[in-house]
Amino acid sequence: MATLETITSAANPLLKDVRRAMARGGLTAQGWCVAETFHLLEEALRSDCEVKVVLAAESVRSAAEAQVRRRAGVKMVVVPDALMLKVSATETSQGVVTLVRPREWTMEQLFRGRALVVALDGMQDPGNAGAILRAAEAFGATGAVFLKGSVSPYNPKTLRASAGSLFRVPFLHGMDATALLAGFQQNQVRLYAAVPAGEGKAPRSPAGCDFTANCALIIGNEARGVGPELRAAALDVSIPTAGVESLNAAVAAGILLYEAQRQRSIR
Amino acid sequence: MATLETITSAANPLLKDVRRAMARGGLTAQGWCVAETFHLLEEALRSDCEVKVVLAAESVRSAAEAQVRRRAGVKMVVVPDALMLKVSATETSQGVVTLVRPREWTMEQLFRGRALVVALDGMQDPGNAGAILRAAEAFGATGAVFLKGSVSPYNPKTLRASAGSLFRVPFLHGMDATALLAGFQQNQVRLYAAVPAGEGKAPRSPAGCDFTANCALIIGNEARGVGPELRAAALDVSIPTAGVESLNAAVAAGILLYEAQRQRSIR
Repeated sequence: MATLETITSAANPLLKDVRRAMARGGLTAQGWCVAETFHLLEEALRSDCEVKVVLAAESVRSAAEAQVRRRAGVKMVVVPDALMLKVSATETSQGVVTLVRPREWTMEQLFRGRALVVALDGMQDPGNAGAILRAAEAFGATGAVFLKGSVSPYNPKTLRASAGSLFRVPFLHGMDATALLAGFQQNQVRLYAAVPAGEGKAPRSPAGCDFTANCALIIGNEARGVGPELRAAALDVSIPTAGVESLNAAVAAGILLYEAQRQRSIR
Repeated sequence: MATLETITSAANPLLKDVRRAMARGGLTAQGWCVAETFHLLEEALRSDCEVKVVLAAESVRSAAEAQVRRRAGVKMVVVPDALMLKVSATETSQGVVTLVRPREWTMEQLFRGRALVVALDGMQDPGNAGAILRAAEAFGATGAVFLKGSVSPYNPKTLRASAGSLFRVPFLHGMDATALLAGFQQNQVRLYAAVPAGEGKAPRSPAGCDFTANCALIIGNEARGVGPELRAAALDVSIPTAGVESLNAAVAAGILLYEAQRQRSIR
């Protein structure tokens, strides 16, 4: 069963630390990631990640306890509702925050088996990044990379949009393009850069790509696209569209991952 | 050329009205929609919509003027930077806000030609709704419906995420399921409800659906899915996924629209 504590002061160091991590869009000072919502609590408890603390507002205490009971040794801290509101600034706060030690992954773990890696090159929006991680898991990607200059995988909004996939999909972050290219070369990975229709150099359609061998999909910054270094090393792939300059980055990534999975399931 | 005015008071009724529309996520009191970013200014000027006023912060005045000059008779209002910051609360404000009279559409306009309509049934997130409109245009959908209980198409965040597609794609909003079903029946439209893998009643895969005839894709609420009334009238379609409960709603809609367009382009 869980150990139980109560916090009553807004000056409590743990609460201040969580608030800071949310505002900064990163980890807490102890290196824990901040998972909002009951769904993420459930996903965290089901995952291989170490669950450090569950903070629950007084009014949702029993619902949180029912979840926490499912794993031994998890510490739960009850917080008055008014105080919890100050911690979780999102409009849709559910009164529960789970602090999770993120798993660490090696490059090898991203490339296990028939590799399908998604690389985010300068992506800014945590909602997009999280939705892509979710699609990556859904379509059997073996790993993901958040290149230097992209949103943090530990941004609470990234984690939330991933719906828990960030607890499971192997990922690296903070790498630069040169290091990533070396890793791709070592693992004999074919690179595809997602490029808006009409902008590619001899772009392939998704169905015209061969995603059945080891490969990586590079999804760029929402405004500027894939950076020059990765672009030069990759083949361009464009989703045929009409009337728009481009698709939302998560929608484009989802379509490419869907196509990769479709090819892999029939060959 | 544009007419030019200056606002210097935070009590100015127009500024207050814009601020209120943004906070509420809807139209201004005059029935204008609020378009942030320079990209949306450009899209508004290029569209068939009536552009009422362009508000520009003093520091981006000349960049805004260069755009506004492209269409005759547009009124531009220059606002001190400090005041503009109070209007546009988003972190990524570009100091420009365009007020646009939205076009009104009839049911017939949504079903012109070989109909492909996207219906949002209870969708809450404006980012998802906008990204879906963008994909709808990209893949040749003939129209969209925001059912009662869904986020407003006029939420500035919906418009922003649509990247301007909301200025062009015919759409209706505020309809209930019964009225929509009557419209679908009249137009001999086959309905497909997007359902997470493993939850459908005899669900088809996207490639197993026939999207070449008049059809509609129903995308449900992010948590609860498609409502019972539309669900009962539709065939279920599920995107094959593994490991996750569901995909992000915009990603799922994008994949289904991509598949519909693929089928329509080859037959």
